[in-house]
Amino acid sequence: MRIEILNTGSELLLGTTMNTHGGWFGRELFKLGLRVQRQTTVPDGDAIRDALAECVGRSDVVLVTGGLGPTSDDITREATAAVLGVELIEDEAAMRSLEAFFERRGSDMVEDNRKQAQVLVGADVIPNPNGTAPGIYVPPRLNGVANCAVFLLPGPPRELYPMFDTEVSPRLRALSGGEMAEEVLELKFSGIGESTIHHQVDEVLAAIPGLEIGYCARVSEVDVRLIGNPEAIVRGREIVLEAFGDKCFSEDGRSLEEVVVKRFSEKGLKLAIAESCTGGLIANRVTDVPGSSEVLTHGFVTYANEAKRDLLGVSWEDLQSVGAVSEPVARQMAEGALRVSGADVAVSVTGIAGPGGGSEEKPVGTVFIGLATKGSETQVLRELYVRDRATFKQTVSQTALDLVRRVAD
Amino acid sequence: MRIEILNTGSELLLGTTMNTHGGWFGRELFKLGLRVQRQTTVPDGDAIRDALAECVGRSDVVLVTGGLGPTSDDITREATAAVLGVELIEDEAAMRSLEAFFERRGSDMVEDNRKQAQVLVGADVIPNPNGTAPGIYVPPRLNGVANCAVFLLPGPPRELYPMFDTEVSPRLRALSGGEMAEEVLELKFSGIGESTIHHQVDEVLAAIPGLEIGYCARVSEVDVRLIGNPEAIVRGREIVLEAFGDKCFSEDGRSLEEVVVKRFSEKGLKLAIAESCTGGLIANRVTDVPGSSEVLTHGFVTYANEAKRDLLGVSWEDLQSVGAVSEPVARQMAEGALRVSGADVAVSVTGIAGPGGGSEEKPVGTVFIGLATKGSETQVLRELYVRDRATFKQTVSQTALDLVRRVAD
Repeated sequence: MRIEILNTGSELLLGTTMNTHGGWFGRELFKLGLRVQRQTTVPDGDAIRDALAECVGRSDVVLVTGGLGPTSDDITREATAAVLGVELIEDEAAMRSLEAFFERRGSDMVEDNRKQAQVLVGADVIPNPNGTAPGIYVPPRLNGVANCAVFLLPGPPRELYPMFDTEVSPRLRALSGGEMAEEVLELKFSGIGESTIHHQVDEVLAAIPGLEIGYCARVSEVDVRLIGNPEAIVRGREIVLEAFGDKCFSEDGRSLEEVVVKRFSEKGLKLAIAESCTGGLIANRVTDVPGSSEVLTHGFVTYANEAKRDLLGVSWEDLQSVGAVSEPVARQMAEGALRVSGADVAVSVTGIAGPGGGSEEKPVGTVFIGLATKGSETQVLRELYVRDRATFKQTVSQTALDLVRRVAD
Repeated sequence: MRIEILNTGSELLLGTTMNTHGGWFGRELFKLGLRVQRQTTVPDGDAIRDALAECVGRSDVVLVTGGLGPTSDDITREATAAVLGVELIEDEAAMRSLEAFFERRGSDMVEDNRKQAQVLVGADVIPNPNGTAPGIYVPPRLNGVANCAVFLLPGPPRELYPMFDTEVSPRLRALSGGEMAEEVLELKFSGIGESTIHHQVDEVLAAIPGLEIGYCARVSEVDVRLIGNPEAIVRGREIVLEAFGDKCFSEDGRSLEEVVVKRFSEKGLKLAIAESCTGGLIANRVTDVPGSSEVLTHGFVTYANEAKRDLLGVSWEDLQSVGAVSEPVARQMAEGALRVSGADVAVSVTGIAGPGGGSEEKPVGTVFIGLATKGSETQVLRELYVRDRATFKQTVSQTALDLVRRVAD
């Protein structure tokens, strides 16, 4: 079943509003075993007519968002009627629920809103408890132009999401025959490049019948996606993990910070974090995970040398002689964090994020990462990540969290 | 000049990666006085061929992202060559810079990367200092199919954005004749809702000839965009600032954290941050700004009660009796951070991010924000932000940074 998304809205193309619909539909449809073949964004107004005509000409289902409002540039209803060759009429039930909506809000309905009760003759009206625009479902048999189902849906997520769950999802399931043809497995790797993985296993994977392979390189992370029948996925997984199993931190979509929190929780371990150059990013990532309060006890953002000394007991002499970005300071930060917090594991980072602050001996991008563990020797890594400031921070946080993950492996 | 964006990447349609390109291009092109007419996303692989053929058939400029990597599903180069009827050859300079890239990283180049040095005969190779895939520019006169300029650009933002600034933007300016028909002014507001602004000034603004108004509601921030001729913008600005000037924190595109760092730097003020429920997000935002090391001295991520007591001197009795999420604890956290750090200003947050941990008296979303300033009385705000965990953290960080900004106003 070929499915397309068509988003209308000038604000999406001007960039004043982020278009999150493409990805959101992708995730929701995937749960139904379906995939989006194409996503298109057009401005408000006439552009929707051509785009919709193309969509219905080549697809089985088109999900349209936006352009159902009361203003003059909201013409999705009219354009759809024209493209599909179906008339528009005012729907009584839709009009009543519009009136009820304004009554609940205690505000008056203006004349412009009347057009929101217009629907295509014979189409299903989809109630919208969270806004003024009802959705419209045009089944494939109804439209005279193509054998294509068309959903007209409101743009705002707070209206769209509940409507999708209760009204769109069941219809899509029925249209697709309810069969889950494919599965997906996402393996996430840290400390290895996309091209290395590709080079070593892609040919073998490509030879597995019914298996589709996708790679996605993120900051210091590569995701390998295997899509296909369950048997093909099992074979593909074996091949990838045999080659790079030690670099794989997730097989279930969990992010690195989610894996860290889960493993530490399961083992009852406590974590402390001492950050200089990442400035709180590592703690922020960990605390994005629900339940992280069971794991993280102390975070120290010791940007100033005084903070490193006063909070973590780093030697002032070392700070002055070898400098804040150094092996001894990373070591003392990690050990100080472990001591002060009473945690089981402490990780520290100190480096030069740039753009300023580099020297010949320690160029911008230099970082020392310390890992102190109760009853074990402290490790310190030296790395050089020549990136922009934000990417540098993200890369360092990834390396640090991966070190932490391995402690609880 | 009709411009389209074509994004390739299965991860964008599966929703595992958010497609931020559409909006980003919209904002960048707008600065050049240009607008995007359509944005399309297709999966990796063959789908790009049809989509690109449609784009070049109806537009003057097509900006393509993604599919320039080394793996088997990266076929943007090949598809473009086929659609435009131009041959591919290995470019010597591109190959040298690929080799140099791997040398800088200290890693080996694998054979698969060679195809990244393939370019369309006669096209411009656009250097990519931040990744392996060079960009490619096919001028309109070169391709045999249509009078359309095609840019092939890497997908990752850290590679795309600098390349756009230095190489794409000047070419677009030249293609468009370099005329800036319109200007844009972006005013950023905190502590006020989009509908309040809209309700109060939209009608007056709409009456100004030649002025287009855009609103963008972000997390705890509303951006009002005025587009038009300089005179119209001056009039629009006056109206908006007369109504809401006290809520406006930026007129030059600077983010809230950039404004805070700039003002504190200018006044020589030092900042300390004590975070519980935001878990390092506030410090992370501040340290995203180059030069923040001159401003931020100490950050405390005091998730555990013991951390609040040991690092900030919060009373154990208060933690036990009124609880960590309370007015006295927020106050003591801010005052403790000020005392321990020696900074001029300290901000503290303690709240319930959820999903667990709420009670009837203090539901999920409750937060106390403390602000301690040398020589002034400490303030504590109580707020209730009923949001998902990530949005809650972002909202709290915004309110906290806005309080901090006002100190240095």
